Amino acid sequence: MPRVTEDYLDSRRKEIMGAAITCFSREGFHRTTMQDIVAETGLSAGAIYRYFPAKEDIVEAIAAEHHSREAGALADAQACVDIGGALRQLARVSLGGLTSAEEQTWRRVTVQVWAEALRNDRVLEIVRSGLDEPVEILADLFRRGQLDGIVSSELEPLGAARVCAAIFQGLVLQQAWNPELDVAAYVDAVLSLIDGLVRTAARTGPVPAAHVGGGPAKAPSS
Amino acid sequence: MPRVTEDYLDSRRKEIMGAAITCFSREGFHRTTMQDIVAETGLSAGAIYRYFPAKEDIVEAIAAEHHSREAGALADAQACVDIGGALRQLARVSLGGLTSAEEQTWRRVTVQVWAEALRNDRVLEIVRSGLDEPVEILADLFRRGQLDGIVSSELEPLGAARVCAAIFQGLVLQQAWNPELDVAAYVDAVLSLIDGLVRTAARTGPVPAAHVGGGPAKAPSS
Repeated sequence: MPRVTEDYLDSRRKEIMGAAITCFSREGFHRTTMQDIVAETGLSAGAIYRYFPAKEDIVEAIAAEHHSREAGALADAQACVDIGGALRQLARVSLGGLTSAEEQTWRRVTVQVWAEALRNDRVLEIVRSGLDEPVEILADLFRRGQLDGIVSSELEPLGAARVCAAIFQGLVLQQAWNPELDVAAYVDAVLSLIDGLVRTAARTGPVPAAHVGGGPAKAPSS
Repeated sequence: MPRVTEDYLDSRRKEIMGAAITCFSREGFHRTTMQDIVAETGLSAGAIYRYFPAKEDIVEAIAAEHHSREAGALADAQACVDIGGALRQLARVSLGGLTSAEEQTWRRVTVQVWAEALRNDRVLEIVRSGLDEPVEILADLFRRGQLDGIVSSELEPLGAARVCAAIFQGLVLQQAWNPELDVAAYVDAVLSLIDGLVRTAARTGPVPAAHVGGGPAKAPSS
Protein backbone atom coordinates (compact mmCIF):
# COMPACT_ATOMS: atom_id res chain seq x y z
CA MET A 1 0.00 0.00 0.00
CA PRO A 2 1.38 3.40 -1.03
CA ARG A 3 0.74 4.94 2.42
CA VAL A 4 2.85 2.30 4.18
CA THR A 5 5.58 2.65 1.58
CA GLU A 6 5.79 6.42 2.09
CA ASP A 7 5.97 6.01 5.86
CA TYR A 8 8.64 3.37 5.38
CA LEU A 9 10.67 5.57 3.04
CA ASP A 10 10.34 8.47 5.43
CA SER A 11 11.46 6.48 8.45
CA ARG A 12 14.45 5.12 6.52
CA ARG A 13 15.43 8.65 5.51
CA LYS A 14 15.15 9.81 9.13
CA GLU A 15 17.21 6.82 10.28
CA ILE A 16 20.00 7.71 7.84
CA MET A 17 19.85 11.40 8.78
CA GLY A 18 20.12 10.49 12.48
CA ALA A 19 23.09 8.22 11.84
CA ALA A 20 24.75 10.97 9.80
CA ILE A 21 24.35 13.49 12.64
CA THR A 22 25.95 10.96 15.01
CA CYS A 23 28.90 10.54 12.63
CA PHE A 24 29.27 14.27 11.90
CA SER A 25 29.24 15.03 15.64
CA ARG A 26 31.87 12.38 16.31
CA GLU A 27 34.20 12.84 13.33
CA GLY A 28 33.39 16.28 11.99
CA PHE A 29 31.58 16.87 8.72
CA HIS A 30 34.60 16.84 6.46
CA ARG A 31 36.14 13.70 7.96
CA THR A 32 32.93 11.67 7.84
CA THR A 33 32.67 9.43 4.77
CA MET A 34 29.56 7.86 3.29
CA GLN A 35 31.08 4.53 4.41
CA ASP A 36 31.05 5.76 8.04
CA ILE A 37 27.36 6.58 7.70
CA VAL A 38 26.64 3.20 6.08
CA ALA A 39 28.38 1.47 8.99
CA GLU A 40 26.50 3.58 11.55
CA THR A 41 23.09 2.68 10.13
CA GLY A 42 23.81 -1.02 9.67
CA LEU A 43 21.99 -0.79 6.31
CA SER A 44 23.54 -1.77 2.99
CA ALA A 45 25.51 0.84 1.07
CA GLY A 46 23.11 0.44 -1.84
CA ALA A 47 20.11 1.21 0.38
CA ILE A 48 21.70 4.45 1.56
CA TYR A 49 22.91 5.70 -1.80
CA ARG A 50 19.35 5.21 -3.09
CA TYR A 51 18.20 7.86 -0.59
CA PHE A 52 21.25 10.11 -0.55
CA PRO A 53 23.88 10.04 -3.31
CA ALA A 54 26.35 12.14 -1.23
CA LYS A 55 26.78 13.39 2.32
CA GLU A 56 25.98 16.92 1.10
CA ASP A 57 22.50 15.58 0.24
CA ILE A 58 22.10 14.37 3.82
CA VAL A 59 23.14 17.74 5.23
CA GLU A 60 20.75 19.43 2.82
CA ALA A 61 17.90 17.19 4.01
CA ILE A 62 18.65 17.81 7.71
CA ALA A 63 19.00 21.55 7.10
CA ALA A 64 15.69 21.56 5.18
CA GLU A 65 13.99 19.87 8.12
CA HIS A 66 15.27 22.55 10.51
CA HIS A 67 14.45 25.32 8.04
CA SER A 68 10.87 24.13 7.78
CA ARG A 69 10.53 24.50 11.58
CA GLU A 70 12.08 27.97 11.39
CA ALA A 71 9.77 28.81 8.49
CA GLY A 72 6.81 28.02 10.74
CA ALA A 73 8.07 30.47 13.39
CA LEU A 74 8.77 33.08 10.69
CA ALA A 75 5.28 32.66 9.19
CA ASP A 76 3.80 33.22 12.65
CA ALA A 77 5.90 36.40 12.92
CA GLN A 78 4.75 37.58 9.49
CA ALA A 79 1.14 37.11 10.56
CA CYS A 80 1.64 39.24 13.70
CA VAL A 81 0.11 42.71 13.69
CA ASP A 82 2.56 43.87 16.35
CA ILE A 83 6.15 43.93 15.04
CA GLY A 84 7.61 44.15 18.54
CA GLY A 85 5.59 41.12 19.59
CA ALA A 86 6.66 39.25 16.47
CA LEU A 87 10.33 39.93 17.13
CA ARG A 88 10.01 38.97 20.80
CA GLN A 89 8.26 35.73 19.90
CA LEU A 90 10.93 34.90 17.28
CA ALA A 91 13.70 35.57 19.81
CA ARG A 92 12.08 33.30 22.39
CA VAL A 93 11.41 30.47 19.94
CA SER A 94 14.59 30.53 17.86
CA LEU A 95 17.13 31.39 20.58
CA GLY A 96 15.28 29.63 23.40
CA GLY A 97 15.05 26.51 21.19
CA LEU A 98 18.82 26.12 21.57
CA THR A 99 18.30 24.74 25.08
CA SER A 100 17.02 21.47 23.56
CA ALA A 101 19.62 18.70 23.51
CA GLU A 102 18.64 17.57 20.01
CA GLU A 103 18.99 21.11 18.69
CA GLN A 104 22.39 21.49 20.38
CA THR A 105 23.70 18.31 18.76
CA TRP A 106 22.60 19.50 15.33
CA ARG A 107 23.98 22.98 15.93
CA ARG A 108 27.42 21.60 16.75
CA VAL A 109 27.27 19.98 13.33
CA THR A 110 26.07 23.30 11.89
CA VAL A 111 29.23 25.03 13.10
CA GLN A 112 31.27 22.53 11.10
CA VAL A 113 29.00 22.96 8.09
CA TRP A 114 29.54 26.74 8.29
CA ALA A 115 33.30 26.20 7.97
CA GLU A 116 32.89 23.59 5.23
CA ALA A 117 30.86 26.15 3.25
CA LEU A 118 34.10 28.08 2.66
CA ARG A 119 35.57 25.13 0.77
CA ASN A 120 32.59 23.35 -0.74
CA ASP A 121 30.28 25.26 -3.12
CA ARG A 122 27.39 22.84 -2.68
CA VAL A 123 27.50 23.35 1.11
CA LEU A 124 27.87 27.12 0.64
CA GLU A 125 24.68 27.10 -1.43
CA ILE A 126 22.83 25.21 1.35
CA VAL A 127 24.09 27.64 4.01
CA ARG A 128 23.34 30.78 2.00
CA SER A 129 19.86 29.75 0.97
CA GLY A 130 19.10 28.80 4.58
CA LEU A 131 20.13 32.32 5.61
CA ASP A 132 18.68 34.39 2.77
CA GLU A 133 15.06 33.45 3.38
CA PRO A 134 14.85 34.37 7.09
CA VAL A 135 16.88 37.53 6.41
CA GLU A 136 14.41 38.64 3.73
CA ILE A 137 11.42 37.91 5.98
CA LEU A 138 13.00 39.83 8.88
CA ALA A 139 13.86 42.76 6.59
CA ASP A 140 10.19 42.80 5.48
CA LEU A 141 9.10 42.87 9.13
CA PHE A 142 11.29 45.91 9.77
CA ARG A 143 9.97 47.60 6.59
CA ARG A 144 6.40 46.98 7.77
CA GLY A 145 7.29 48.42 11.17
CA GLN A 146 8.63 51.51 9.38
CA LEU A 147 5.45 51.88 7.30
CA ASP A 148 3.45 51.58 10.52
CA GLY A 149 5.67 54.21 12.12
CA ILE A 150 6.75 51.97 14.99
CA VAL A 151 10.29 51.31 13.76
CA SER A 152 12.60 54.24 13.03
CA SER A 153 12.77 55.18 9.35
CA GLU A 154 16.52 55.52 9.89
CA LEU A 155 16.94 51.78 10.55
CA GLU A 156 18.57 49.84 7.70
CA PRO A 157 16.03 46.98 7.29
CA LEU A 158 18.39 44.54 5.57
CA GLY A 159 21.28 45.38 7.89
CA ALA A 160 19.00 44.92 10.90
CA ALA A 161 17.78 41.57 9.55
CA ARG A 162 21.38 40.43 9.16
CA VAL A 163 22.09 41.53 12.74
CA CYS A 164 19.15 39.37 13.90
CA ALA A 165 20.63 36.40 12.03
CA ALA A 166 24.02 37.15 13.62
CA ILE A 167 22.47 37.16 17.09
CA PHE A 168 21.27 33.62 16.40
CA GLN A 169 24.54 32.47 14.78
CA GLY A 170 26.71 33.90 17.54
CA LEU A 171 24.66 32.14 20.20
CA VAL A 172 25.04 28.86 18.29
CA LEU A 173 28.83 29.34 18.29
CA GLN A 174 29.13 30.44 21.90
CA GLN A 175 26.91 27.64 23.14
CA ALA A 176 28.84 25.05 21.11
CA TRP A 177 32.05 26.23 22.83
CA ASN A 178 30.38 26.50 26.23
CA PRO A 179 27.33 24.28 26.77
CA GLU A 180 26.86 25.90 30.22
CA LEU A 181 26.13 29.29 28.62
CA ASP A 182 23.13 31.07 30.16
CA VAL A 183 20.69 31.10 27.23
CA ALA A 184 17.93 32.74 29.33
CA ALA A 185 20.13 35.75 30.13
CA TYR A 186 21.01 35.99 26.44
CA VAL A 187 17.35 35.93 25.41
CA ASP A 188 16.55 38.58 28.06
CA ALA A 189 19.25 40.86 26.64
CA VAL A 190 17.83 40.41 23.14
CA LEU A 191 14.34 41.28 24.42
CA SER A 192 15.78 44.50 25.92
CA LEU A 193 17.32 45.33 22.54
CA ILE A 194 13.96 44.79 20.84
CA ASP A 195 12.26 47.04 23.43
CA GLY A 196 14.78 49.76 22.65
CA LEU A 197 14.40 49.37 18.90
CA VAL A 198 10.63 49.42 18.84
CA ARG A 199 10.04 51.91 21.66
CA THR A 200 12.66 54.31 20.32
CA ALA A 201 10.98 54.21 16.95
CA ALA A 202 7.59 54.90 18.51
CA ARG A 203 8.96 58.26 19.62
CA THR A 204 10.55 59.21 16.31
CA GLY A 205 7.57 59.11 13.98
CA PRO A 206 3.80 59.35 14.03
CA VAL A 207 2.08 56.13 15.01
CA PRO A 208 -0.90 55.56 12.72
CA ALA A 209 -4.10 53.81 13.78
CA ALA A 210 -3.57 50.15 14.69
CA HIS A 211 -2.58 48.06 11.72
CA VAL A 212 -5.83 46.41 10.66
CA GLY A 213 -4.84 44.18 7.76
CA GLY A 214 -2.78 41.86 9.91
CA GLY A 215 -2.14 39.43 7.05
CA PRO A 216 1.31 38.08 6.38
CA ALA A 217 3.71 40.44 4.66
CA LYS A 218 4.46 39.97 1.00
CA ALA A 219 6.47 36.79 0.51
CA PRO A 220 10.17 37.52 0.10
CA SER A 221 11.30 37.68 -3.48
CA SER A 222 13.95 34.97 -3.10
CA MET B 1 73.32 43.45 18.66
CA PRO B 2 70.25 42.31 20.64
CA ARG B 3 68.00 44.88 18.94
CA VAL B 4 68.74 43.46 15.48
CA THR B 5 68.29 39.91 16.74
CA GLU B 6 64.88 40.74 18.17
CA ASP B 7 63.78 42.41 14.96
CA TYR B 8 65.04 39.41 13.04
CA LEU B 9 63.21 36.94 15.29
CA ASP B 10 60.07 39.02 15.03
CA SER B 11 60.17 39.22 11.26
CA ARG B 12 60.75 35.47 11.01
CA ARG B 13 57.76 34.83 13.28
CA LYS B 14 55.61 37.14 11.14
CA GLU B 15 56.84 35.41 7.97
CA ILE B 16 55.79 32.01 9.34
CA MET B 17 52.44 33.36 10.55
CA GLY B 18 51.76 34.85 7.11
CA ALA B 19 52.65 31.58 5.38
CA ALA B 20 50.39 29.70 7.80
CA ILE B 21 47.43 31.98 7.02
CA THR B 22 48.02 31.37 3.30
CA CYS B 23 48.00 27.60 3.90
CA PHE B 24 44.99 27.66 6.25
CA SER B 25 43.03 29.76 3.71
CA ARG B 26 43.89 27.37 0.90
CA GLU B 27 43.62 23.99 2.63
CA GLY B 28 41.56 24.66 5.73
CA PHE B 29 42.99 24.62 9.23
CA HIS B 30 42.57 20.92 9.90
CA ARG B 31 44.00 19.79 6.58
CA THR B 32 47.08 22.00 6.78
CA THR B 33 50.15 20.20 8.10
CA MET B 34 53.31 21.71 9.55
CA GLN B 35 55.04 20.37 6.43
CA ASP B 36 52.72 22.49 4.25
CA ILE B 37 53.70 25.57 6.25
CA VAL B 38 57.40 24.68 6.03
CA ALA B 39 57.07 24.36 2.24
CA GLU B 40 55.18 27.67 2.00
CA THR B 41 57.88 29.61 3.87
CA GLY B 42 60.81 28.03 2.07
CA LEU B 43 62.60 27.88 5.45
CA SER B 44 63.94 24.69 6.98
CA ALA B 45 61.64 22.57 9.13
CA GLY B 46 64.04 23.01 12.06
CA ALA B 47 63.84 26.80 11.77
CA ILE B 48 60.06 26.73 11.95
CA TYR B 49 59.72 24.24 14.80
CA ARG B 50 62.05 26.47 16.82
CA TYR B 51 59.44 29.25 16.64
CA PHE B 52 56.29 27.15 16.68
CA PRO B 53 56.23 23.52 17.86
CA ALA B 54 52.71 22.95 16.44
CA LYS B 55 50.20 24.65 14.16
CA GLU B 56 48.04 25.40 17.21
CA ASP B 57 50.91 27.60 18.41
CA ILE B 58 50.80 29.52 15.16
CA VAL B 59 47.05 30.04 15.42
CA GLU B 60 47.52 31.15 19.01
CA ALA B 61 50.16 33.69 17.96
CA ILE B 62 48.00 35.08 15.13
CA ALA B 63 44.94 35.22 17.40
CA ALA B 64 47.02 37.00 20.07
CA GLU B 65 48.08 39.61 17.52
CA HIS B 66 44.45 40.30 16.59
CA HIS B 67 43.37 40.25 20.23
CA SER B 68 45.95 42.87 21.09
CA ARG B 69 44.44 45.17 18.44
CA GLU B 70 40.96 44.47 19.83
CA ALA B 71 42.28 45.07 23.34
CA GLY B 72 43.35 48.56 22.24
CA ALA B 73 39.85 49.34 20.97
CA LEU B 74 38.35 47.90 24.17
CA ALA B 75 40.68 49.95 26.37
CA ASP B 76 39.59 53.08 24.48
CA ALA B 77 35.98 52.10 25.16
CA GLN B 78 36.69 51.54 28.86
CA ALA B 79 38.22 55.02 29.07
CA CYS B 80 35.11 56.62 27.52
CA VAL B 81 32.85 58.59 29.86
CA ASP B 82 29.91 58.13 27.50
CA ILE B 83 28.83 54.48 27.28
CA GLY B 84 26.78 55.10 24.14
CA GLY B 85 29.78 56.72 22.48
CA ALA B 86 32.02 53.86 23.59
CA LEU B 87 29.65 51.26 22.10
CA ARG B 88 29.28 53.22 18.85
CA GLN B 89 33.04 53.56 18.52
CA LEU B 90 33.56 49.84 19.18
CA ALA B 91 30.94 48.96 16.56
CA ARG B 92 32.58 51.19 13.96
CA VAL B 93 36.10 49.91 14.66
CA SER B 94 35.46 46.20 15.17
CA LEU B 95 32.71 45.66 12.59
CA GLY B 96 33.95 48.29 10.15
CA GLY B 97 37.43 46.72 10.34
CA LEU B 98 36.06 43.71 8.50
CA THR B 99 36.16 45.65 5.24
CA SER B 100 39.97 45.30 5.20
CA ALA B 101 41.21 42.55 2.88
CA GLU B 102 43.81 41.35 5.39
CA GLU B 103 41.18 41.08 8.12
CA GLN B 104 38.85 39.19 5.77
CA THR B 105 41.53 36.63 4.93
CA TRP B 106 42.20 36.02 8.62
CA ARG B 107 38.52 35.88 9.46
CA ARG B 108 37.94 33.15 6.86
CA VAL B 109 40.56 31.19 8.77
CA THR B 110 38.81 32.13 12.02
CA VAL B 111 35.61 30.44 10.84
CA GLN B 112 37.56 27.21 10.38
CA VAL B 113 39.23 27.66 13.75
CA TRP B 114 35.78 28.08 15.35
CA ALA B 115 34.76 24.66 13.98
CA GLU B 116 38.08 23.07 14.92
CA ALA B 117 37.51 24.26 18.50
CA LEU B 118 34.76 21.64 18.80
CA ARG B 119 37.27 18.84 18.22
CA ASN B 120 40.55 20.21 19.57
CA ASP B 121 40.78 21.28 23.22
CA ARG B 122 43.82 23.46 22.67
CA VAL B 123 42.02 25.41 19.95
CA LEU B 124 38.88 25.60 22.11
CA GLU B 125 40.97 27.19 24.85
CA ILE B 126 42.33 29.80 22.39
CA VAL B 127 38.84 30.59 21.10
CA ARG B 128 37.24 30.79 24.55
CA SER B 129 39.92 32.96 26.08
CA GLY B 130 39.76 35.27 23.05
CA LEU B 131 36.03 35.65 23.68
CA ASP B 132 35.91 35.83 27.48
CA GLU B 133 37.99 38.97 27.82
CA PRO B 134 35.99 41.25 25.47
CA VAL B 135 32.75 39.82 26.90
CA GLU B 136 33.82 40.74 30.45
CA ILE B 137 34.86 44.24 29.37
CA LEU B 138 31.58 44.79 27.54
CA ALA B 139 29.58 43.48 30.51
CA ASP B 140 31.47 45.98 32.71
CA LEU B 141 30.58 48.78 30.29
CA PHE B 142 26.90 47.88 30.57
CA ARG B 143 27.16 47.69 34.38
CA ARG B 144 28.76 51.15 34.43
CA GLY B 145 25.96 52.44 32.19
CA GLN B 146 23.48 51.02 34.68
CA LEU B 147 25.24 52.69 37.63
CA ASP B 148 25.19 55.95 35.68
CA GLY B 149 21.47 55.46 35.00
CA ILE B 150 21.86 55.56 31.22
CA VAL B 151 21.38 51.85 30.58
CA SER B 152 18.23 50.12 31.85
CA SER B 153 18.71 48.28 35.12
CA GLU B 154 16.65 45.49 33.54
CA LEU B 155 19.35 44.74 30.96
CA GLU B 156 21.31 41.52 31.60
CA PRO B 157 24.93 42.87 31.35
CA LEU B 158 26.57 39.51 30.60
CA GLY B 159 23.81 38.47 28.20
CA ALA B 160 24.10 41.83 26.42
CA ALA B 161 27.89 41.47 26.20
CA ARG B 162 27.45 38.05 24.62
CA VAL B 163 24.97 39.51 22.14
CA CYS B 164 27.60 42.14 21.19
CA ALA B 165 30.12 39.34 20.58
CA ALA B 166 27.50 37.49 18.51
CA ILE B 167 26.90 40.57 16.37
CA PHE B 168 30.61 40.48 15.51
CA GLN B 169 30.79 36.71 15.02
CA GLY B 170 27.69 36.61 12.83
CA LEU B 171 29.08 39.33 10.59
CA VAL B 172 32.33 37.38 10.25
CA LEU B 173 30.35 34.31 9.13
CA GLN B 174 28.01 36.14 6.79
CA GLN B 175 30.83 38.05 5.16
CA ALA B 176 32.90 34.89 4.74
CA TRP B 177 29.98 33.32 2.86
CA ASN B 178 29.24 36.51 0.94
CA PRO B 179 32.16 38.89 0.47
CA GLU B 180 29.76 41.38 -1.22
CA LEU B 181 27.82 41.85 2.02
CA ASP B 182 27.03 45.50 2.81
CA VAL B 183 29.08 46.05 5.97
CA ALA B 184 28.12 49.74 6.17
CA ALA B 185 24.39 48.91 6.31
CA TYR B 186 25.15 46.34 8.99
CA VAL B 187 27.10 48.86 11.08
CA ASP B 188 24.28 51.41 10.65
CA ALA B 189 21.76 48.88 11.97
CA VAL B 190 23.98 48.19 14.98
CA LEU B 191 24.26 51.93 15.67
CA SER B 192 20.44 52.15 15.65
CA LEU B 193 20.30 49.28 18.15
CA ILE B 194 22.75 51.12 20.40
CA ASP B 195 20.67 54.30 20.14
CA GLY B 196 17.63 52.33 21.27
CA LEU B 197 19.46 50.66 24.11
CA VAL B 198 21.00 53.79 25.54
CA ARG B 199 18.19 56.25 24.82
CA THR B 200 15.57 53.84 26.13
CA ALA B 201 17.49 53.47 29.34
CA ALA B 202 17.79 57.22 29.69
CA ARG B 203 14.02 57.34 30.01
CA THR B 204 13.66 54.47 32.48
CA GLY B 205 15.77 55.71 35.34
CA PRO B 206 17.05 58.95 36.81
CA VAL B 207 20.06 60.35 34.95
CA PRO B 208 22.60 61.64 37.47
CA ALA B 209 24.83 64.64 36.87
CA ALA B 210 27.37 64.04 34.10
CA HIS B 211 29.83 61.32 35.00
CA VAL B 212 32.94 63.18 36.14
CA GLY B 213 35.39 60.44 37.06
CA GLY B 214 35.77 59.21 33.51
CA GLY B 215 38.55 56.75 34.34
CA PRO B 216 38.57 53.31 32.87
CA ALA B 217 36.23 50.78 34.48
CA LYS B 218 37.64 48.21 36.87
CA ALA B 219 39.66 45.66 34.91
CA PRO B 220 37.69 42.46 34.28
CA SER B 221 38.35 39.74 36.81
CA SER B 222 39.51 37.20 34.24
